[in-house]
Amino acid sequence: MRNLRIKLAYDGTDFHGWQVQPNRRTIQGALQEALAEIEGDTVEVHGSGRTDAGVHALGQVASFHLKNRIPADNLRRAVNRLLPDAIRVLEADEADADFHPRRRAISKTYEYRIWRGEVCPPFSSRYVYHHPYPLNEEAMAKAANAFAGTHDFRSLAAGGEEKESTVRTIFSSRLEKDGDLLTYRVRGEGFLYRMVRNIVGTLFEVGRGNFAAEDVARILAAKQRSQAGPTVPARGLFLVEVQFRAATGS
Amino acid sequence: MRNLRIKLAYDGTDFHGWQVQPNRRTIQGALQEALAEIEGDTVEVHGSGRTDAGVHALGQVASFHLKNRIPADNLRRAVNRLLPDAIRVLEADEADADFHPRRRAISKTYEYRIWRGEVCPPFSSRYVYHHPYPLNEEAMAKAANAFAGTHDFRSLAAGGEEKESTVRTIFSSRLEKDGDLLTYRVRGEGFLYRMVRNIVGTLFEVGRGNFAAEDVARILAAKQRSQAGPTVPARGLFLVEVQFRAATGS
Repeated sequence: MRNLRIKLAYDGTDFHGWQVQPNRRTIQGALQEALAEIEGDTVEVHGSGRTDAGVHALGQVASFHLKNRIPADNLRRAVNRLLPDAIRVLEADEADADFHPRRRAISKTYEYRIWRGEVCPPFSSRYVYHHPYPLNEEAMAKAANAFAGTHDFRSLAAGGEEKESTVRTIFSSRLEKDGDLLTYRVRGEGFLYRMVRNIVGTLFEVGRGNFAAEDVARILAAKQRSQAGPTVPARGLFLVEVQFRAATGS
Repeated sequence: MRNLRIKLAYDGTDFHGWQVQPNRRTIQGALQEALAEIEGDTVEVHGSGRTDAGVHALGQVASFHLKNRIPADNLRRAVNRLLPDAIRVLEADEADADFHPRRRAISKTYEYRIWRGEVCPPFSSRYVYHHPYPLNEEAMAKAANAFAGTHDFRSLAAGGEEKESTVRTIFSSRLEKDGDLLTYRVRGEGFLYRMVRNIVGTLFEVGRGNFAAEDVARILAAKQRSQAGPTVPARGLFLVEVQFRAATGS
């Protein structure tokens, strides 16, 4: 059977996240339905990782096996015709037999978008977290840098992962301002459940003056969820890109 | 009573247009409800003109009378708290007693956005008309220019206006390309019902080669709706701006 790899974008607002669930609209569920219609049989789609309800993607990667001989480019068009407008397959290619988007991934990039203007444009409200109140953005940017490196991120994990290692390497962690848009951009080898939203919640506490940028080291060392900031809403979060190692290394 | 003027933006996707209708979500209806809550009495909102179901606005202007003495800026914030995210009041100011956004308007600017890329990004799908098929965009741009000037636009009116004058002056009418986005931008003293969407539908017929750019003069002279192109979908249309004459001229 062929192994196909797709890159997709989605507006997660009206979906219960990536993972298929009975009687719920999910991204994986919508993809599997569309592909089953083309294949005439059930198709199991593997993602590079789950995204939560309301989280968006600019470049999620998934793979699946297919008996159907339809050329990859025609498949992309056919799937897009069957999918809702909120999910779009951007690219489709033949992958090597062993390709699996979760196992082959070496890093992922996420963005969290915060709208700082007093009025949030109605065309952006599904894609940003609106926070027009005072924040010390300079201190937040300094705190953002402090998450880079290899750390035990237990304080930033939503829980339930206590038995596995919570050590992760973050390659870059930066806060950037462009007009009214404040964007946190992070690239790491992997992320714990809700880790990006918990980091951003912690940056907010720094922005409000409840933590100093220097407290990040202390929060990480504590290895207790209660020491970090709250989880920010899903609507501002985008899975931007997934990076993979070459096939030979698999 | 005070006369207040507001400038507002809205995502028209989930509304049945501007005008209040029983048991339907409309922009005027949502505004009147929010204002009634602040005033403790019914408030009648006057718009610069109706927008159809699904049409968006970047700068619609409306006015209403209020007994409440709340400062205009506080009113803006209070109304935004009561309105759905899809409608935002951008500005609120005291207006002279005679100000009426329809009667005082001297021109309006609309934009119609067409996505030419093969895949429509899920974050844009509510705000563009997706047309990835071949079009002679050069001929369309030439035809767009031909609508500028004072003409009888009866061929471009949706009907029902036969007894009133269908002569209108269009100050500028242009088609512009920016990457995958093709935008028709038109400024005129006034527009007949569905006129912008019928002009764009006519431009599409030019793009497909069914009309030549030179046919625009013939279509206008025919004064028959059947001579022009079909109405394009509402989702690509934005009311961009309303221009007013100074108060002294009223």
